[in-house]
Amino acid sequence: MAKICLKGSAMLNPVPSVLITSKNKKDKVNVFTVGWIGTACTHPPMITVAIRPERLSYEYIKETMEFTVNIPTASMAKKVDFCGVKSGRNVDKIKEMNFKLVNGVNIKSPMLDECPIALECKVASITPLGTHHLFLAEVVSVHIDESIIDSNGKFHLERADLLCYSHGEYYNLSSKPLGSFGFSVKKKNKKSH
Amino acid sequence: MAKICLKGSAMLNPVPSVLITSKNKKDKVNVFTVGWIGTACTHPPMITVAIRPERLSYEYIKETMEFTVNIPTASMAKKVDFCGVKSGRNVDKIKEMNFKLVNGVNIKSPMLDECPIALECKVASITPLGTHHLFLAEVVSVHIDESIIDSNGKFHLERADLLCYSHGEYYNLSSKPLGSFGFSVKKKNKKSH
Repeated sequence: MAKICLKGSAMLNPVPSVLITSKNKKDKVNVFTVGWIGTACTHPPMITVAIRPERLSYEYIKETMEFTVNIPTASMAKKVDFCGVKSGRNVDKIKEMNFKLVNGVNIKSPMLDECPIALECKVASITPLGTHHLFLAEVVSVHIDESIIDSNGKFHLERADLLCYSHGEYYNLSSKPLGSFGFSVKKKNKKSH
Repeated sequence: MAKICLKGSAMLNPVPSVLITSKNKKDKVNVFTVGWIGTACTHPPMITVAIRPERLSYEYIKETMEFTVNIPTASMAKKVDFCGVKSGRNVDKIKEMNFKLVNGVNIKSPMLDECPIALECKVASITPLGTHHLFLAEVVSVHIDESIIDSNGKFHLERADLLCYSHGEYYNLSSKPLGSFGFSVKKKNKKSH
């Protein structure tokens, strides 16, 4: 492939697009959209979130060192976009988007009822990098909607129709997976004659 | 939604699924698959990558403090899976997958020709967290295939058919986006009568 070389940029794609809720010390709740998020460790479970310091949620999270990652469905794309474009300084996004809040279990920050998965997180460190500060946080609990767990306790995230984001566009995933982890080395069953 | 509360886990989904190349000081090249990756900052452009210390690539990257993130297409799913399952200690994955290497421009680590996007990265810090160590790195240059850039210089990542990963399954994105950034607040054009 003939490639063009450009200066460095945030060109990792596709990325998740999640709704992060937080509650400040005066019990005010805000929600905002984050694409700059990644898994940092399996055990202990940790994630990174990059947040601009001018964001209202930056203030809230720095104050309490807690937040909740709510993973939205594709049908929530418009709400996800709105919560990324608008600031909680000017509009009550929870009210405007008609989000129902559910109390947190291990932290004070609430969850968005509408999202099928929520990760309760406690901040371990904040590192200023430039336009964004990097929040490293431990996932202290996970909440999963019953409808995507089968009777054996297996998770079926494919039923959740999750959202992702690629270079300015929101997408859902293809309806069928291309393969499962390990499929490249899985031995095919021999046909019986 | 009725949710079940579970202990914390690495439940962020969907995530990218990328091929990371590195070259050690003896000029040996390895490639491995990473899903635990995220954007950490826009300016300067930085990313985080979580790597298990027992990985061969961990050794290579720690030695040179450089690596390349190669973003694969959905058609490469089987190769991506193979490079995540197999270790470079036992098999030459570059050779096995028939990957053509292209020399790096700003770092010594090579790029995979087959991937439409490559990010050349220099490691800024390594933080041990548990099962994984967190690599924070600056993206020093980006290489993009000409076929996904139009005559105005606009990137069309939707043409690249990129891969993503959700809870053990590989997916491509839906063929059409659900909306563009800002679509929730965009004023509709008035119809002329």
